[in-house]
Amino acid sequence: MSGLVTQSRLVTLEGGEGAGKTTVLHALRDALASAGADVVCTREPGGTPLAERIRELLLDPNHEPASPQTELLLMFASRAQHVRETILPALKRGAWVLCDRFTDSSYAYQGGGRGLDPELIATLEREVVGIRPGLTLLLDVGVDEGRQRARGRDLVPDRIERERDEFFERVRAAYLARAAAEPQRIRVLDASRPAVEVAAEAVSALRTWMREAA
Amino acid sequence: MSGLVTQSRLVTLEGGEGAGKTTVLHALRDALASAGADVVCTREPGGTPLAERIRELLLDPNHEPASPQTELLLMFASRAQHVRETILPALKRGAWVLCDRFTDSSYAYQGGGRGLDPELIATLEREVVGIRPGLTLLLDVGVDEGRQRARGRDLVPDRIERERDEFFERVRAAYLARAAAEPQRIRVLDASRPAVEVAAEAVSALRTWMREAA
Ligand SMILES: Nc1ncnc2c1ncn2[C@@H]1O[C@H](COP(=O)(O)OP(=O)(O)OP(=O)(O)O)[C@@H](O)[C@H]1O
Ligand SMILES: Nc1ncnc2c1ncn2[C@@H]1O[C@H](COP(=O)(O)OP(=O)(O)OP(=O)(O)O)[C@@H](O)[C@H]1O
Ligand SMILES: [Mg+2]
Ligand SMILES: [Mg+2]
Repeated sequence: MSGLVTQSRLVTLEGGEGAGKTTVLHALRDALASAGADVVCTREPGGTPLAERIRELLLDPNHEPASPQTELLLMFASRAQHVRETILPALKRGAWVLCDRFTDSSYAYQGGGRGLDPELIATLEREVVGIRPGLTLLLDVGVDEGRQRARGRDLVPDRIERERDEFFERVRAAYLARAAAEPQRIRVLDASRPAVEVAAEAVSALRTWMREAA
Repeated sequence: MSGLVTQSRLVTLEGGEGAGKTTVLHALRDALASAGADVVCTREPGGTPLAERIRELLLDPNHEPASPQTELLLMFASRAQHVRETILPALKRGAWVLCDRFTDSSYAYQGGGRGLDPELIATLEREVVGIRPGLTLLLDVGVDEGRQRARGRDLVPDRIERERDEFFERVRAAYLARAAAEPQRIRVLDASRPAVEVAAEAVSALRTWMREAA
Protein backbone atom coordinates (compact mmCIF):
# COMPACT_ATOMS: atom_id res chain seq x y z
CA MET A 1 0.00 0.00 0.00
CA SER A 2 1.29 3.46 -0.83
CA GLY A 3 -0.83 6.64 -0.94
CA LEU A 4 -3.69 7.77 1.21
CA VAL A 5 -7.30 6.71 0.62
CA THR A 6 -10.09 8.67 2.33
CA GLN A 7 -12.54 6.33 4.06
CA SER A 8 -15.82 8.17 4.39
CA ARG A 9 -17.18 5.88 7.11
CA LEU A 10 -14.14 6.30 9.32
CA VAL A 11 -14.89 9.09 11.82
CA THR A 12 -12.23 10.12 14.32
CA LEU A 13 -12.32 12.07 17.58
CA GLU A 14 -9.31 14.23 18.36
CA GLY A 15 -8.28 16.70 21.04
CA GLY A 16 -6.10 17.11 24.12
CA GLU A 17 -6.42 15.36 27.46
CA GLY A 18 -9.90 15.60 28.98
CA ALA A 19 -11.38 17.42 25.98
CA GLY A 20 -14.30 15.00 26.02
CA LYS A 21 -13.43 12.65 23.13
CA THR A 22 -14.62 9.48 24.82
CA THR A 23 -17.81 11.19 26.03
CA VAL A 24 -18.63 12.44 22.52
CA LEU A 25 -17.77 9.07 20.98
CA HIS A 26 -20.49 7.44 23.06
CA ALA A 27 -23.04 10.01 21.86
CA LEU A 28 -22.04 9.40 18.22
CA ARG A 29 -22.29 5.66 18.69
CA ASP A 30 -25.80 5.99 20.10
CA ALA A 31 -26.84 8.26 17.23
CA LEU A 32 -25.51 5.80 14.61
CA ALA A 33 -26.99 2.79 16.36
CA SER A 34 -30.43 4.40 16.63
CA ALA A 35 -30.22 5.21 12.90
CA GLY A 36 -29.79 1.44 12.39
CA ALA A 37 -26.16 1.68 11.29
CA ASP A 38 -23.57 -1.04 11.94
CA VAL A 39 -21.02 0.77 14.11
CA VAL A 40 -17.65 -0.23 15.54
CA CYS A 41 -16.08 1.86 18.33
CA THR A 42 -12.36 1.64 18.83
CA ARG A 43 -9.44 3.66 20.15
CA GLU A 44 -5.75 4.43 19.70
CA PRO A 45 -3.22 3.50 20.67
CA GLY A 46 -4.88 0.08 20.87
CA GLY A 47 -7.79 -1.63 19.20
CA THR A 48 -6.34 -5.17 18.86
CA PRO A 49 -4.73 -7.43 21.49
CA LEU A 50 -1.20 -6.71 20.18
CA ALA A 51 -1.92 -2.99 19.74
CA GLU A 52 -3.23 -2.83 23.32
CA ARG A 53 0.04 -4.39 24.49
CA ILE A 54 1.93 -1.70 22.58
CA ARG A 55 -0.29 0.87 24.31
CA GLU A 56 0.76 -0.52 27.69
CA LEU A 57 4.43 -0.06 26.75
CA LEU A 58 3.74 3.53 25.70
CA LEU A 59 1.91 4.57 28.83
CA ASP A 60 3.72 2.50 31.47
CA PRO A 61 5.97 4.70 33.64
CA ASN A 62 7.88 1.61 34.94
CA HIS A 63 10.70 1.48 32.40
CA GLU A 64 13.04 4.13 30.99
CA PRO A 65 11.17 6.79 28.97
CA ALA A 66 10.78 6.10 25.25
CA SER A 67 12.78 8.49 23.07
CA PRO A 68 10.52 10.67 20.88
CA GLN A 69 11.43 8.50 17.87
CA THR A 70 10.65 5.30 19.79
CA GLU A 71 7.30 6.75 20.86
CA LEU A 72 6.46 7.71 17.27
CA LEU A 73 7.28 4.25 15.92
CA LEU A 74 5.36 2.48 18.67
CA MET A 75 2.33 4.66 17.88
CA PHE A 76 2.54 3.78 14.20
CA ALA A 77 3.23 0.11 14.92
CA SER A 78 0.02 -0.04 16.92
CA ARG A 79 -1.83 1.92 14.20
CA ALA A 80 -0.53 -0.37 11.41
CA GLN A 81 -1.91 -3.34 13.33
CA HIS A 82 -5.20 -1.63 14.21
CA VAL A 83 -5.90 -0.58 10.62
CA ARG A 84 -5.32 -4.07 9.21
CA GLU A 85 -6.94 -6.15 11.97
CA THR A 86 -9.88 -4.00 13.04
CA ILE A 87 -10.60 -0.89 10.96
CA LEU A 88 -10.30 -2.16 7.37
CA PRO A 89 -12.30 -5.37 8.00
CA ALA A 90 -15.10 -3.29 9.59
CA LEU A 91 -15.14 -0.74 6.75
CA LYS A 92 -15.10 -3.57 4.22
CA ARG A 93 -18.32 -5.01 5.55
CA GLY A 94 -19.89 -1.52 5.42
CA ALA A 95 -19.75 -0.58 9.10
CA TRP A 96 -19.11 2.91 10.43
CA VAL A 97 -15.95 3.07 12.51
CA LEU A 98 -15.67 5.60 15.33
CA CYS A 99 -12.11 5.93 16.49
CA ASP A 100 -10.96 7.71 19.65
CA ARG A 101 -7.70 9.28 18.32
CA PHE A 102 -6.01 8.41 15.03
CA THR A 103 -3.15 9.73 12.87
CA ASP A 104 -3.88 13.39 13.69
CA SER A 105 -2.84 12.57 17.27
CA SER A 106 0.65 11.65 16.03
CA TYR A 107 1.00 14.96 14.20
CA ALA A 108 -0.19 16.78 17.32
CA TYR A 109 1.68 14.87 20.06
CA GLN A 110 4.82 13.47 18.40
CA GLY A 111 5.03 16.31 15.84
CA GLY A 112 3.81 19.39 17.75
CA GLY A 113 4.47 18.14 21.28
CA ARG A 114 7.77 16.29 20.83
CA GLY A 115 9.03 18.31 17.88
CA LEU A 116 9.53 15.43 15.42
CA ASP A 117 9.63 16.18 11.69
CA PRO A 118 6.09 16.17 10.20
CA GLU A 119 7.61 14.85 6.95
CA LEU A 120 8.57 11.60 8.68
CA ILE A 121 5.06 11.36 10.14
CA ALA A 122 3.59 11.94 6.67
CA THR A 123 5.79 9.17 5.24
CA LEU A 124 4.58 6.73 7.89
CA GLU A 125 0.97 7.78 7.35
CA ARG A 126 1.29 7.17 3.61
CA GLU A 127 3.38 4.00 3.71
CA VAL A 128 1.98 2.07 6.67
CA VAL A 129 -1.47 3.54 7.43
CA GLY A 130 -2.74 4.29 3.93
CA ILE A 131 -6.18 5.57 4.99
CA ARG A 132 -7.54 8.81 6.36
CA PRO A 133 -10.90 9.54 8.00
CA GLY A 134 -13.74 11.14 6.09
CA LEU A 135 -14.66 13.24 9.12
CA THR A 136 -12.65 14.29 12.15
CA LEU A 137 -14.13 16.13 15.11
CA LEU A 138 -11.50 18.15 16.94
CA LEU A 139 -12.62 18.94 20.48
CA ASP A 140 -10.83 22.12 21.40
CA VAL A 141 -10.57 23.24 25.01
CA GLY A 142 -8.03 25.20 27.05
CA VAL A 143 -5.16 23.10 28.37
CA ASP A 144 -5.94 23.91 32.02
CA GLU A 145 -9.60 23.08 31.69
CA GLY A 146 -8.91 19.78 29.91
CA ARG A 147 -6.25 18.68 32.37
CA GLN A 148 -8.52 19.50 35.28
CA ARG A 149 -11.25 17.32 33.77
CA ALA A 150 -8.83 14.44 33.16
CA ARG A 151 -7.42 14.75 36.68
CA GLY A 152 -10.92 14.52 38.07
CA ARG A 153 -11.25 11.13 36.36
CA ASP A 154 -7.84 9.39 36.61
CA LEU A 155 -6.21 8.39 39.87
CA VAL A 156 -2.74 7.85 38.44
CA PRO A 157 -1.56 9.93 35.45
CA ASP A 158 0.09 7.89 32.66
CA ARG A 159 3.41 8.80 31.06
CA ILE A 160 1.99 11.29 28.59
CA GLU A 161 -0.39 12.90 31.09
CA ARG A 162 2.70 13.77 33.19
CA GLU A 163 4.03 16.22 30.58
CA ARG A 164 4.11 19.94 31.34
CA ASP A 165 1.57 22.54 30.18
CA GLU A 166 3.90 23.86 27.43
CA PHE A 167 3.83 20.42 25.86
CA PHE A 168 0.04 20.43 25.73
CA GLU A 169 -0.03 24.00 24.39
CA ARG A 170 2.12 22.81 21.46
CA VAL A 171 -0.22 19.85 20.98
CA ARG A 172 -3.23 22.16 20.88
CA ALA A 173 -1.56 24.54 18.43
CA ALA A 174 -0.60 21.65 16.13
CA TYR A 175 -4.17 20.37 16.15
CA LEU A 176 -5.56 23.80 15.28
CA ALA A 177 -3.00 24.22 12.48
CA ARG A 178 -4.09 20.89 10.99
CA ALA A 179 -7.74 21.90 11.19
CA ALA A 180 -6.95 25.19 9.43
CA ALA A 181 -5.14 23.27 6.67
CA GLU A 182 -7.95 20.72 6.19
CA PRO A 183 -11.19 22.52 7.01
CA GLN A 184 -13.22 20.08 4.87
CA ARG A 185 -12.28 17.06 6.90
CA ILE A 186 -11.58 18.47 10.37
CA ARG A 187 -14.45 20.14 12.19
CA VAL A 188 -13.41 22.10 15.30
CA LEU A 189 -15.89 22.02 18.19
CA ASP A 190 -15.66 24.38 21.14
CA ALA A 191 -15.37 21.78 23.90
CA SER A 192 -15.35 24.29 26.75
CA ARG A 193 -19.16 24.19 26.70
CA PRO A 194 -21.25 21.69 28.71
CA ALA A 195 -20.91 18.08 27.55
CA VAL A 196 -24.51 17.85 26.31
CA GLU A 197 -24.04 20.84 24.02
CA VAL A 198 -20.76 19.53 22.60
CA ALA A 199 -22.30 16.10 22.05
CA ALA A 200 -25.35 17.61 20.31
CA GLU A 201 -23.17 19.60 17.92
CA ALA A 202 -21.04 16.52 17.24
CA VAL A 203 -24.10 14.40 16.47
CA SER A 204 -25.43 17.07 14.15
CA ALA A 205 -22.06 17.29 12.33
CA LEU A 206 -22.06 13.52 11.92
CA ARG A 207 -25.64 13.49 10.57
CA THR A 208 -24.74 16.15 8.01
CA TRP A 209 -21.69 14.08 7.01
CA MET A 210 -23.79 10.90 6.70
CA ARG A 211 -26.03 12.63 4.17
CA GLU A 212 -23.04 14.06 2.23
CA ALA A 213 -21.13 10.77 2.24
CA ALA A 214 -24.13 8.67 1.20
CA MET B 1 19.15 13.64 13.29
CA SER B 2 19.02 13.02 9.57
CA GLY B 3 21.66 11.21 7.53
CA LEU B 4 23.80 8.21 8.32
CA VAL B 5 27.08 8.42 10.24
CA THR B 6 29.46 5.45 10.15
CA GLN B 7 30.60 4.51 13.65
CA SER B 8 33.89 2.66 13.31
CA ARG B 9 33.71 1.10 16.77
CA LEU B 10 30.27 -0.35 16.19
CA VAL B 11 30.68 -3.95 14.97
CA THR B 12 27.62 -6.02 14.12
CA LEU B 13 27.01 -9.74 13.69
CA GLU B 14 24.46 -10.77 11.10
CA GLY B 15 23.12 -13.98 9.61
CA GLY B 16 20.17 -16.35 9.66
CA GLU B 17 18.91 -18.49 12.53
CA GLY B 18 21.64 -20.66 14.06
CA ALA B 19 24.41 -19.24 11.90
CA GLY B 20 26.56 -18.77 15.00
CA LYS B 21 26.24 -15.02 15.64
CA THR B 22 26.09 -15.28 19.42
CA THR B 23 28.94 -17.80 19.48
CA VAL B 24 31.17 -15.51 17.38
CA LEU B 25 30.19 -12.46 19.40
CA HIS B 26 31.62 -14.09 22.53
CA ALA B 27 34.91 -14.78 20.73
CA LEU B 28 35.12 -11.16 19.55
CA ARG B 29 34.36 -9.88 23.04
CA ASP B 30 37.17 -12.02 24.48
CA ALA B 31 39.60 -10.80 21.81
CA LEU B 32 38.76 -7.14 22.49
CA ALA B 33 38.85 -7.58 26.25
CA SER B 34 42.25 -9.29 26.14
CA ALA B 35 43.53 -6.40 23.99
CA GLY B 36 42.49 -4.14 26.89
CA ALA B 37 39.58 -2.51 25.04
CA ASP B 38 36.41 -1.26 26.72
CA VAL B 39 33.72 -3.43 25.11
CA VAL B 40 29.94 -3.48 25.34
CA CYS B 41 28.00 -6.50 24.06
CA THR B 42 24.39 -6.04 23.16
CA ARG B 43 21.70 -7.47 20.90
CA GLU B 44 18.66 -6.66 18.82
CA PRO B 45 15.81 -6.53 19.12
CA GLY B 46 16.53 -5.49 22.70
CA GLY B 47 19.39 -3.88 24.55
CA THR B 48 17.42 -1.64 26.98
CA PRO B 49 14.56 -2.51 29.37
CA LEU B 50 11.94 -0.96 27.06
CA ALA B 51 13.55 -2.45 23.93
CA GLU B 52 13.55 -5.90 25.56
CA ARG B 53 9.83 -5.48 26.24
CA ILE B 54 9.33 -4.66 22.56
CA ARG B 55 11.32 -7.83 21.76
CA GLU B 56 8.89 -9.87 23.86
CA LEU B 57 5.96 -8.48 21.86
CA LEU B 58 7.72 -9.37 18.60
CA LEU B 59 8.55 -12.94 19.51
CA ASP B 60 5.54 -13.87 21.66
CA PRO B 61 3.20 -16.27 19.83
CA ASN B 62 0.36 -15.57 22.30
CA HIS B 63 -1.39 -12.71 20.50
CA GLU B 64 -2.47 -12.22 16.89
CA PRO B 65 0.51 -12.08 14.48
CA ALA B 66 2.00 -8.65 13.82
CA SER B 67 1.41 -7.45 10.26
CA PRO B 68 4.70 -7.04 8.33
CA GLN B 69 4.44 -3.26 8.77
CA THR B 70 3.80 -3.60 12.50
CA GLU B 71 6.80 -5.90 12.80
CA LEU B 72 9.01 -3.44 10.91
CA LEU B 73 7.99 -0.50 13.11
CA LEU B 74 8.43 -2.48 16.32
CA MET B 75 11.94 -3.46 15.18
CA PHE B 76 12.81 0.17 14.49
CA ALA B 77 11.14 1.38 17.69
CA SER B 78 13.37 -0.97 19.66
CA ARG B 79 16.40 0.10 17.58
CA ALA B 80 15.70 3.83 18.08
CA GLN B 81 15.66 3.24 21.83
CA HIS B 82 18.71 0.99 21.81
CA VAL B 83 20.82 3.44 19.80
CA ARG B 84 20.02 6.38 22.07
CA GLU B 85 20.11 4.62 25.45
CA THR B 86 22.90 2.09 25.00
CA ILE B 87 24.93 2.28 21.79
CA LEU B 88 25.62 6.01 21.43
CA PRO B 89 26.54 6.52 25.12
CA ALA B 90 29.01 3.59 24.89
CA LEU B 91 30.55 4.86 21.64
CA LYS B 92 30.78 8.35 23.12
CA ARG B 93 32.97 7.17 25.96
CA GLY B 94 35.20 5.35 23.43
CA ALA B 95 34.01 1.78 23.95
CA TRP B 96 33.70 -0.82 21.22
CA VAL B 97 30.13 -2.02 20.78
CA LEU B 98 29.45 -5.55 19.57
CA CYS B 99 25.86 -5.94 18.51
CA ASP B 100 24.12 -9.24 17.76
CA ARG B 101 21.94 -8.11 14.79
CA PHE B 102 21.34 -4.50 13.74
CA THR B 103 19.73 -2.64 10.81
CA ASP B 104 20.91 -5.19 8.20
CA SER B 105 18.55 -7.66 9.91
CA SER B 106 15.59 -5.42 9.04
CA TYR B 107 16.60 -5.29 5.38
CA ALA B 108 17.01 -9.08 5.38
CA TYR B 109 13.95 -10.14 7.42
CA GLN B 110 11.35 -7.40 6.93
CA GLY B 111 12.64 -6.45 3.45
CA GLY B 112 13.77 -9.78 1.93
CA GLY B 113 11.69 -12.11 4.11
CA ARG B 114 8.42 -10.16 4.40
CA GLY B 115 8.71 -8.27 1.12
CA LEU B 116 8.48 -4.72 2.51
CA ASP B 117 9.83 -1.83 0.44
CA PRO B 118 13.57 -1.31 1.11
CA GLU B 119 13.02 2.43 0.51
CA LEU B 120 10.85 2.62 3.63
CA ILE B 121 13.51 0.73 5.58
CA ALA B 122 16.17 3.14 4.29
CA THR B 123 14.06 6.12 5.39
CA LEU B 124 13.72 4.69 8.89
CA GLU B 125 17.44 3.91 9.02
CA ARG B 126 18.30 7.49 8.03
CA GLU B 127 15.68 9.30 10.09
CA VAL B 128 15.53 7.32 13.34
CA VAL B 129 18.74 5.28 13.53
CA GLY B 130 21.26 7.67 12.01
CA ILE B 131 24.31 5.43 12.47
CA ARG B 132 25.76 2.46 10.66
CA PRO B 133 28.44 0.00 11.78
CA GLY B 134 32.06 0.29 10.66
CA LEU B 135 32.30 -3.48 10.31
CA THR B 136 29.63 -6.14 9.85
CA LEU B 137 30.36 -9.85 9.88
CA LEU B 138 27.77 -11.79 7.93
CA LEU B 139 27.75 -15.45 8.95
CA ASP B 140 26.48 -17.32 5.95
CA VAL B 141 25.25 -20.88 6.24
CA GLY B 142 22.64 -23.01 4.45
CA VAL B 143 19.11 -22.55 5.78
CA ASP B 144 18.75 -26.25 6.72
CA GLU B 145 22.05 -26.37 8.55
CA GLY B 146 21.31 -23.17 10.51
CA ARG B 147 17.79 -24.20 11.46
CA GLN B 148 19.05 -27.58 12.62
CA ARG B 149 21.60 -25.86 14.87
CA ALA B 150 18.99 -23.49 16.29
CA ARG B 151 16.55 -26.35 16.86
CA GLY B 152 19.23 -28.20 18.80
CA ARG B 153 19.38 -25.23 21.17
CA ASP B 154 15.82 -23.93 21.59
CA LEU B 155 13.00 -25.94 23.13
CA VAL B 156 10.18 -23.71 21.85
CA PRO B 157 10.57 -21.85 18.54
CA ASP B 158 9.58 -18.15 18.70
CA ARG B 159 7.28 -16.50 16.17
CA ILE B 160 9.98 -15.79 13.60
CA GLU B 161 11.63 -19.20 13.95
CA ARG B 162 8.28 -20.74 12.92
CA GLU B 163 8.48 -19.33 9.39
CA ARG B 164 8.94 -21.67 6.44
CA ASP B 165 12.22 -22.41 4.63
CA GLU B 166 11.33 -20.14 1.67
CA PHE B 167 11.18 -17.21 4.06
CA PHE B 168 14.70 -17.93 5.31
CA GLU B 169 15.97 -18.44 1.76
CA ARG B 170 14.77 -14.91 0.95
CA VAL B 171 16.45 -13.64 4.12
CA ARG B 172 19.73 -15.26 3.12
CA ALA B 173 19.54 -13.87 -0.42
CA ALA B 174 18.83 -10.36 0.88
CA TYR B 175 21.82 -10.54 3.22
CA LEU B 176 24.13 -11.68 0.40
CA ALA B 177 22.83 -8.91 -1.86
CA ARG B 178 23.62 -6.33 0.81
CA ALA B 179 27.12 -7.76 1.25
CA ALA B 180 27.69 -7.58 -2.52
CA ALA B 181 26.58 -3.94 -2.51
CA GLU B 182 28.75 -2.94 0.48
CA PRO B 183 31.83 -5.18 0.34
CA GLN B 184 33.90 -2.65 2.32
CA ARG B 185 31.68 -2.80 5.37
CA ILE B 186 30.18 -6.30 5.22
CA ARG B 187 32.53 -9.25 5.44
CA VAL B 188 30.92 -12.61 4.56
CA LEU B 189 32.19 -15.58 6.56
CA ASP B 190 31.46 -19.17 5.55
CA ALA B 191 29.70 -20.29 8.71
CA SER B 192 29.24 -23.89 7.63
CA ARG B 193 32.73 -24.62 8.99
CA PRO B 194 33.41 -25.67 12.61
CA ALA B 195 32.74 -22.93 15.15
CA VAL B 196 36.41 -22.52 16.14
CA GLU B 197 37.38 -21.83 12.53
CA VAL B 198 34.61 -19.29 12.02
CA ALA B 199 35.47 -17.58 15.29
CA ALA B 200 39.18 -17.43 14.39
CA GLU B 201 38.44 -15.82 11.03
CA ALA B 202 36.04 -13.36 12.71
CA VAL B 203 38.68 -12.37 15.29
CA SER B 204 41.25 -11.89 12.57
CA ALA B 205 38.84 -9.70 10.55
CA LEU B 206 38.18 -7.62 13.66
CA ARG B 207 41.93 -7.22 14.39
CA THR B 208 42.51 -6.04 10.83
CA TRP B 209 39.64 -3.58 11.20
CA MET B 210 40.96 -2.29 14.55
CA ARG B 211 44.24 -1.38 12.87
CA GLU B 212 42.50 0.27 9.90
CA ALA B 213 40.03 2.19 12.08
CA ALA B 214 42.67 3.40 14.53
N1 LIG C 1 -17.86 19.35 27.84
C1 LIG C 1 -17.54 18.92 29.07
N2 LIG C 1 -17.62 19.71 30.14
C2 LIG C 1 -17.26 19.29 31.36
N3 LIG C 1 -16.80 18.06 31.62
C3 LIG C 1 -16.69 17.20 30.57
C4 LIG C 1 -17.05 17.58 29.25
N4 LIG C 1 -16.83 16.52 28.43
C5 LIG C 1 -16.35 15.53 29.20
N5 LIG C 1 -16.29 15.94 30.51
C6 LIG C 1 -15.79 15.18 31.64
O1 LIG C 1 -14.36 15.37 31.64
C7 LIG C 1 -13.72 14.13 31.88
C8 LIG C 1 -12.89 13.77 30.64
O2 LIG C 1 -13.79 13.46 29.56
P1 LIG C 1 -13.42 12.34 28.51
O3 LIG C 1 -12.88 11.12 29.18
O4 LIG C 1 -14.57 12.18 27.58
O5 LIG C 1 -12.24 13.10 27.76
P2 LIG C 1 -11.16 12.53 26.76
O6 LIG C 1 -10.93 13.60 25.76
O7 LIG C 1 -11.59 11.19 26.26
O8 LIG C 1 -9.90 12.39 27.72
P3 LIG C 1 -8.56 11.51 27.49
O9 LIG C 1 -7.72 12.26 26.50
O10 LIG C 1 -7.92 11.49 28.84
O11 LIG C 1 -9.02 10.16 27.01
C9 LIG C 1 -14.79 13.10 32.18
O12 LIG C 1 -14.93 13.04 33.57
C10 LIG C 1 -16.03 13.68 31.51
O13 LIG C 1 -17.22 13.31 32.16
N1 LIG D 1 30.12 -23.11 13.14
C1 LIG D 1 29.29 -23.90 13.85
N2 LIG D 1 29.18 -25.21 13.58
C2 LIG D 1 28.33 -25.99 14.29
N3 LIG D 1 27.56 -25.56 15.30
C3 LIG D 1 27.65 -24.24 15.60
C4 LIG D 1 28.51 -23.34 14.91
N4 LIG D 1 28.36 -22.09 15.43
C5 LIG D 1 27.44 -22.21 16.42
N5 LIG D 1 27.01 -23.49 16.55
C6 LIG D 1 26.00 -24.03 17.45
O1 LIG D 1 24.76 -23.79 16.81
C7 LIG D 1 23.81 -23.31 17.74
C8 LIG D 1 23.42 -21.89 17.30
O2 LIG D 1 24.54 -21.01 17.47
P1 LIG D 1 24.32 -19.50 17.93
O3 LIG D 1 23.36 -19.43 19.06
O4 LIG D 1 25.68 -18.88 18.11
O5 LIG D 1 23.66 -18.98 16.57
P2 LIG D 1 22.89 -17.60 16.35
O6 LIG D 1 23.27 -17.18 14.95
O7 LIG D 1 23.19 -16.67 17.44
O8 LIG D 1 21.39 -18.10 16.37
P3 LIG D 1 20.05 -17.20 16.61
O9 LIG D 1 19.80 -16.52 15.31
O10 LIG D 1 19.01 -18.23 16.89
O11 LIG D 1 20.36 -16.28 17.75
C9 LIG D 1 24.48 -23.33 19.11
O12 LIG D 1 24.12 -24.52 19.73
C10 LIG D 1 25.96 -23.29 18.75
O13 LIG D 1 26.75 -23.93 19.73
MG1 LIG E 1 -10.67 9.34 26.41
MG1 LIG F 1 21.90 -15.71 18.80
